[in-house]
Amino acid sequence: MSLHRWETQAQRGRDILNNSIPKQWLAPTDTLPPAAQKNVIDFPRKSGLLSERELSITELSATQLVTEMGRGKLKAEEVVVAFLKRAVLGHQLLNFATEFMADQAISRAKELDAYFQRTGQLVGPLHGVPISVKEHIELKNRTCNTGYVAWVDQIATEDAYLVQLLSNAGAVFHVRTNQPQTLMHLCCVNNITGATLNPYNRTLTPGGSSGGEGASTGFKCSPLGIGTDIGGSIRVPAAFCGSYGFRPTSMRLPRAGLKVAASGQETINGVVGPLASSSLEDIELFQKAVLDQEPWDTETSLAPVPWKTVTPNRNVTVGIMWDDGCVRPHPPIVRGLKLAKEKLLAAGIKVVDWEPFKHDHGYKIISSLYYPDSAALQRKIIRESGEPVLPLSDWVFNFSRSSPLSHPEAWELQHDRDVYRDDYNALMKSRGVDFILSPAFPGVAAVYGESHYWNYTAIWNVLDLPAAIFPSGLSVDPKLDALTEQDKKYKPRSEVDEREWEKYQGPERYEGAPIALQVTGRHFKDEETLAAAKLVEEVIKGEKKDSKL
Amino acid sequence: MSLHRWETQAQRGRDILNNSIPKQWLAPTDTLPPAAQKNVIDFPRKSGLLSERELSITELSATQLVTEMGRGKLKAEEVVVAFLKRAVLGHQLLNFATEFMADQAISRAKELDAYFQRTGQLVGPLHGVPISVKEHIELKNRTCNTGYVAWVDQIATEDAYLVQLLSNAGAVFHVRTNQPQTLMHLCCVNNITGATLNPYNRTLTPGGSSGGEGASTGFKCSPLGIGTDIGGSIRVPAAFCGSYGFRPTSMRLPRAGLKVAASGQETINGVVGPLASSSLEDIELFQKAVLDQEPWDTETSLAPVPWKTVTPNRNVTVGIMWDDGCVRPHPPIVRGLKLAKEKLLAAGIKVVDWEPFKHDHGYKIISSLYYPDSAALQRKIIRESGEPVLPLSDWVFNFSRSSPLSHPEAWELQHDRDVYRDDYNALMKSRGVDFILSPAFPGVAAVYGESHYWNYTAIWNVLDLPAAIFPSGLSVDPKLDALTEQDKKYKPRSEVDEREWEKYQGPERYEGAPIALQVTGRHFKDEETLAAAKLVEEVIKGEKKDSKL
Repeated sequence: MSLHRWETQAQRGRDILNNSIPKQWLAPTDTLPPAAQKNVIDFPRKSGLLSERELSITELSATQLVTEMGRGKLKAEEVVVAFLKRAVLGHQLLNFATEFMADQAISRAKELDAYFQRTGQLVGPLHGVPISVKEHIELKNRTCNTGYVAWVDQIATEDAYLVQLLSNAGAVFHVRTNQPQTLMHLCCVNNITGATLNPYNRTLTPGGSSGGEGASTGFKCSPLGIGTDIGGSIRVPAAFCGSYGFRPTSMRLPRAGLKVAASGQETINGVVGPLASSSLEDIELFQKAVLDQEPWDTETSLAPVPWKTVTPNRNVTVGIMWDDGCVRPHPPIVRGLKLAKEKLLAAGIKVVDWEPFKHDHGYKIISSLYYPDSAALQRKIIRESGEPVLPLSDWVFNFSRSSPLSHPEAWELQHDRDVYRDDYNALMKSRGVDFILSPAFPGVAAVYGESHYWNYTAIWNVLDLPAAIFPSGLSVDPKLDALTEQDKKYKPRSEVDEREWEKYQGPERYEGAPIALQVTGRHFKDEETLAAAKLVEEVIKGEKKDSKL
Repeated sequence: MSLHRWETQAQRGRDILNNSIPKQWLAPTDTLPPAAQKNVIDFPRKSGLLSERELSITELSATQLVTEMGRGKLKAEEVVVAFLKRAVLGHQLLNFATEFMADQAISRAKELDAYFQRTGQLVGPLHGVPISVKEHIELKNRTCNTGYVAWVDQIATEDAYLVQLLSNAGAVFHVRTNQPQTLMHLCCVNNITGATLNPYNRTLTPGGSSGGEGASTGFKCSPLGIGTDIGGSIRVPAAFCGSYGFRPTSMRLPRAGLKVAASGQETINGVVGPLASSSLEDIELFQKAVLDQEPWDTETSLAPVPWKTVTPNRNVTVGIMWDDGCVRPHPPIVRGLKLAKEKLLAAGIKVVDWEPFKHDHGYKIISSLYYPDSAALQRKIIRESGEPVLPLSDWVFNFSRSSPLSHPEAWELQHDRDVYRDDYNALMKSRGVDFILSPAFPGVAAVYGESHYWNYTAIWNVLDLPAAIFPSGLSVDPKLDALTEQDKKYKPRSEVDEREWEKYQGPERYEGAPIALQVTGRHFKDEETLAAAKLVEEVIKGEKKDSKL
């Protein structure tokens, strides 16, 4: 049987991946957990494939790694090798990589070590920190397919500007990560390298579109990763995989060199931002390392707003949004919010309920503004190769718009968007709420193919607010998260509410999945939002995160 | 003969104007200069209709007015009355107003005086400064027609946000000013209140679209005015009328309450900004008064960039752009640039030639992005009333685009726009040029109906750079600006170049017109740009502008 042309093309994408895997670190297949084993999060430690030192290194935060390298206790080379080894193992279990860059990364790490040895100085604030990179972020002389089979042979001529800045700061790029066809799934499957799995439960999605980054940081294959987010694509993977993620206000981080179907579209601005394996402090490290280089002096669409250091302030009001008024969150999520409320109150922090303001209106706006052209560009790129339209691509195409908007219709929606932003902002001020604590999704990590409802994250995209994700420390519990008699009597408010509620069925489907929370702040208050998220996390977990070892 | 319906509607717009004119200050018709008298700039002084004190008041800058009010030497009431009287006279000669607001302005001035008497304090940095307002900027309970007959009955429910901020700072709004049909002429005529004239030569246009503001500030009917600019609409009127004007970087000044046909369109962002009768210092006063109120905390599409005080720095490099590579400037403009170069060099300031970078490319981008819908919205509003499409409206509709862009086509142009911005910015940095000194138009004030070529101003809109206009102190000279033998042999580079060059014919057509210059700086360097423009003006004029009396 002959292959379709697109399959040959897709195979070239797989070849790039397979040829790049450092074979010496592959675990023998017979040592791997059985495919039926859902939770593989502890496998690195249990497998014996990594040394104690390698395990310790990969469990450090980026901040800790830099500190240790600055003290001469760690070398960049051993750091990147440790993460590469863990990444190879992670890839065997989760299929999260699209390309390994081991030789280049090791060679770069050696340079950093030589520099440190020569000068006694670190190159910059990210000296020797391995960073994984979502595939559609361009890297010089490497292909960039953005999840489209038609693009598997397209080669970037330059590193994305953000990558250049991170590199100036000392970062080492060791692995590129998977994304869905079109980038527009909160899931992670394409026709090239297939589906990425969730490290806590391999029947679940790692989320998307930066799903490879979710798996990479969740499995600690990298302390930091670069994702992109236009509706939740950084935050959902972070939430689903038990890691940290941040959607900055748009026009702060540079976007030159992000390969997308519709360059120049600005109806809803996608953003680039970090995911982290270990802490919100690492997210701050990333943001500061980039913004201290004043990227607005080169990429002129950015706002010239320097990063400022903000320490958590306990004198704030946190509004808890239990429900967005449209889709009822599942029991584990509600349990996470309840814990947060209890702990915040006990810590003397002011907590109020946040009544959502027209989230359905916001969702209508953003859904229309994703594809004013009715996804014509995306469909065209799919048609070019003849690859099949995947179910969640089809779903988002049809969900969003069935026919193109006229320009005046699009402008009216953009006007509505801006009015909605100003109204929401005014409401936060008039209610005296500084930050909103909310779910990141109706439930924990979705069953593959079921991540349909975006608006616990997309709402902050249409409003262009900074939003941080962190793990609550809880995960799905078969007893605590069972449906109560009252739950079973729930009458959904709409078909969408019903669809989402019926997915839950019970905790068994979601065994092992972490429960994450989202903290959102006001426009351009990125620093304050991260500081508030740190405060909430510390209060919930009863621990002061400390970057010292 | 019965009137067309649109004429009845237009008459209602004229009635608003005519009913608002404070009749007690109208000069008897027989005391006015004959219609054939071109230059009326000295008429206020010669007419004897204003007292010496009123003449002195209206010749002060806003900064000086505030200083004197702060010293108790002037009262807000006498200030606004003086400007109202001059504005009534100016309107009789130039037809620049669309509505006087004498009672409201005087009553507001009295409140300010009472406040000062009570507290010894000024209300704010614009205490008692009369400001004229371009008609399409909404004022509560007043109509707002944006130059469309169809809209003459539309009433605003709120003051534009910028107006609120200026009012907080103590400003007094005394007169509203004319604009062209569609706002898209560098000229000033509509089917409601007709054509506004240039105070230096009434056969010439005051420019547009903020042509009423050009006349208002040029004739000193107000020390400050509010205009808007998407292709030169603040700067061209300032240049044509011998006043000062500034196009800020977009997303600094608030735009809520600017009534336009295509709210929500953001292919090219129009901006709002000041014109001033007397000094660039007044422009700074205006900008600082607004931005010190942190409007981004309310209008969330603005960048949170505070105003900073910058003093002129002589250690800069000024690039002089003699020609944009597309359309040759007329002799008076070249003479203005030559004077500037000579004076700058004599003052020891570094001057180089600025080689324009793809201005034709920039003009193509912006021309297409003005009307991605092929001006369908604008045409529709014109059709609603049945008013005639004026020649320059027809011209801009056809010049811009004959058929709508698809969304992907528009996005590609937006992408090209952003790349062009970054490239131009990089070029300024690599050439070490801090500011560009250039013409604001191929010539001085255009003959009515001839202001076709926008790209000496529109180029800075597509690039989103801050640009300031100031008078060189020169005006058209019959001898110095005569065409030389060499001029007469000029072979135009294109049809457009030929069209613009042939308009000149000789200095006689432009008798009395002032020669203005434009200083442009880098993105978001608004403060530095104004400081540089002040420096260049001072050097050219050999005077240190002093806000003390």
